[in-house]
Amino acid sequence: MKGVSIVKKLLFVYLLLIGLFVLYIYNYQAESSTKRAWNGNELVGDVDETYVMVTFMVGIDYWKRALKGFEDAAEALNVSIEYRGSTQYDVYEEMTVLEQVIAKNPAGIAISTMDPEALNPVIDKAVEAGIPVVMFDADAPASKAYSFLGTDNYKAGVEAAHKMAELLKEKGQVGVITLPNQLNHQERTKGFQDTIFKEYPEMEVVSVKDGRGDQMISKEAAEKMIAEYPDLAGVFVTEANGGVGVGQTIIDQQLKDSIKIISFDTDKGTLDMIKDDVISATLAQGTWEMGYWSLQFLFHLQHGIHEQDRENEPLPRFVDTGVTIVTKENVNAYYPQ
Amino acid sequence: MKGVSIVKKLLFVYLLLIGLFVLYIYNYQAESSTKRAWNGNELVGDVDETYVMVTFMVGIDYWKRALKGFEDAAEALNVSIEYRGSTQYDVYEEMTVLEQVIAKNPAGIAISTMDPEALNPVIDKAVEAGIPVVMFDADAPASKAYSFLGTDNYKAGVEAAHKMAELLKEKGQVGVITLPNQLNHQERTKGFQDTIFKEYPEMEVVSVKDGRGDQMISKEAAEKMIAEYPDLAGVFVTEANGGVGVGQTIIDQQLKDSIKIISFDTDKGTLDMIKDDVISATLAQGTWEMGYWSLQFLFHLQHGIHEQDRENEPLPRFVDTGVTIVTKENVNAYYPQ
Repeated sequence: MKGVSIVKKLLFVYLLLIGLFVLYIYNYQAESSTKRAWNGNELVGDVDETYVMVTFMVGIDYWKRALKGFEDAAEALNVSIEYRGSTQYDVYEEMTVLEQVIAKNPAGIAISTMDPEALNPVIDKAVEAGIPVVMFDADAPASKAYSFLGTDNYKAGVEAAHKMAELLKEKGQVGVITLPNQLNHQERTKGFQDTIFKEYPEMEVVSVKDGRGDQMISKEAAEKMIAEYPDLAGVFVTEANGGVGVGQTIIDQQLKDSIKIISFDTDKGTLDMIKDDVISATLAQGTWEMGYWSLQFLFHLQHGIHEQDRENEPLPRFVDTGVTIVTKENVNAYYPQ
Repeated sequence: MKGVSIVKKLLFVYLLLIGLFVLYIYNYQAESSTKRAWNGNELVGDVDETYVMVTFMVGIDYWKRALKGFEDAAEALNVSIEYRGSTQYDVYEEMTVLEQVIAKNPAGIAISTMDPEALNPVIDKAVEAGIPVVMFDADAPASKAYSFLGTDNYKAGVEAAHKMAELLKEKGQVGVITLPNQLNHQERTKGFQDTIFKEYPEMEVVSVKDGRGDQMISKEAAEKMIAEYPDLAGVFVTEANGGVGVGQTIIDQQLKDSIKIISFDTDKGTLDMIKDDVISATLAQGTWEMGYWSLQFLFHLQHGIHEQDRENEPLPRFVDTGVTIVTKENVNAYYPQ
């Protein structure tokens, strides 16, 4: 009887074992079929899917936050990225790099162009080859790229005007130092001028000068402006090198208390001058947002996630990534980490 | 010896059993920890997470494509949605509905407002309670909503002007029938006028009349315009009821061959008149895109997916969802399916 009892127990154990094994296999299959469904419908890509960011002057700090956004989106979507670009401020070099990127047939390309027209034939070639392309930071409006993600420069100028009015208690003469031949700088200047004119009757834009994007030339322009308008109370500088140049003038002439400067972007020189109360505020662009949503848009193009059966463009035409005003209070967060 | 052999076998089976069980548990834990990682980093929500779309006049066709975009994004992100709104064109009703939605503490709310200011206190209350809010189609610019996704109406007017110039071979007198007191219609008109003035020297905007968004009043405005300007070659109507009204004038006076109409939106009356060669083109707004990207934005707010450590706004401030020109060639795709 003992032998039978052992055999019975053995049988029971075997059945249990088989039962567990069946459960295990069943569970394993259920898991993998769930995964397949996810991969088909959801926002999960493949690590072999490589999206490329292309810029000019790859070494400068300016691109770091955009690239971080691009990387963060790649992690969220489970895809891979590469960063390429010209080392110099050379449109032919950027064109060559873009040609090389296209030759590898990537899953999508996000481009910031040095020139609003020169890259168009190469951009169009990529789109015609079926490669998703979006522009970020600097657009090529006549190209076939699907979307542009960047700062609405007119609105940035409007925000600069409101901040200047706040700093000056809505009174006084102000000037602008800019790059009068570049579209984005023209827009910043116009947004600033229009807003001062329409909304602040006791303020006046008395002078607009060319700083050529250069620290020394902007410094000299500021010196001339101050000589011409001794009551000048504020200067809006539409790019960062110029902002530091105007800051130097203010330091040299000990005018920190009487002239307020608003600059653009967040390079180290600008941030240091904010800490030292030389520059009152600067406008930080949403470069992380440009990178993050560029990759999202490219992914949606690559995976055909858009309205079906209609002839609409598959993506929004323009995303204004906005600006944030940086002052002494929040300046620390903007140093590269 | 036989007894020992059976005990040994039994022991072996037990060890095997324990081994398999450990493997099973280990495997189970590995699976679930992988799942946790996905849930933490990736774009996969929870079906208990409910996002709400709120509009006015919930019954009209206009919202269907926006709601479809909202639904498509919910499917992609594995979250739930609800659609709520006022049944009438009544701002107090919309306010009450929004209050009820907020009381349920949803994961996020996308709102199209009847009035650019009246809803602000309720919108701000939602944001202050920590509920993600974006505006779509019609903005409340002074509210605390994080973003606005809609048509850049000035640019839509620019596109209408280019299409009109194409239809008229860049020559002739044109008019506009609009709602002169509503901001979005002012912008459409201005984009149209500026573009004709700047880019088409042989064209002229000779008349801008108020159609009050009403078919009959727009019909009468068109009759008056044609009487005043017998050489009128084209009319841009900035909303759909007016477009059908102007179309009626053209049919009544048998002017189909001499006056081209460009209208706005894609309701059935407009599409039928495009089929019948009465209206030459209409501008379809990217309403699917508004719904889709609204939900994406709300999800990103809810899950805290944005640049860390900076004080930037967590989302792009504005998304221009663009317009598509609908003509006889692609009109069929725009009938509700």
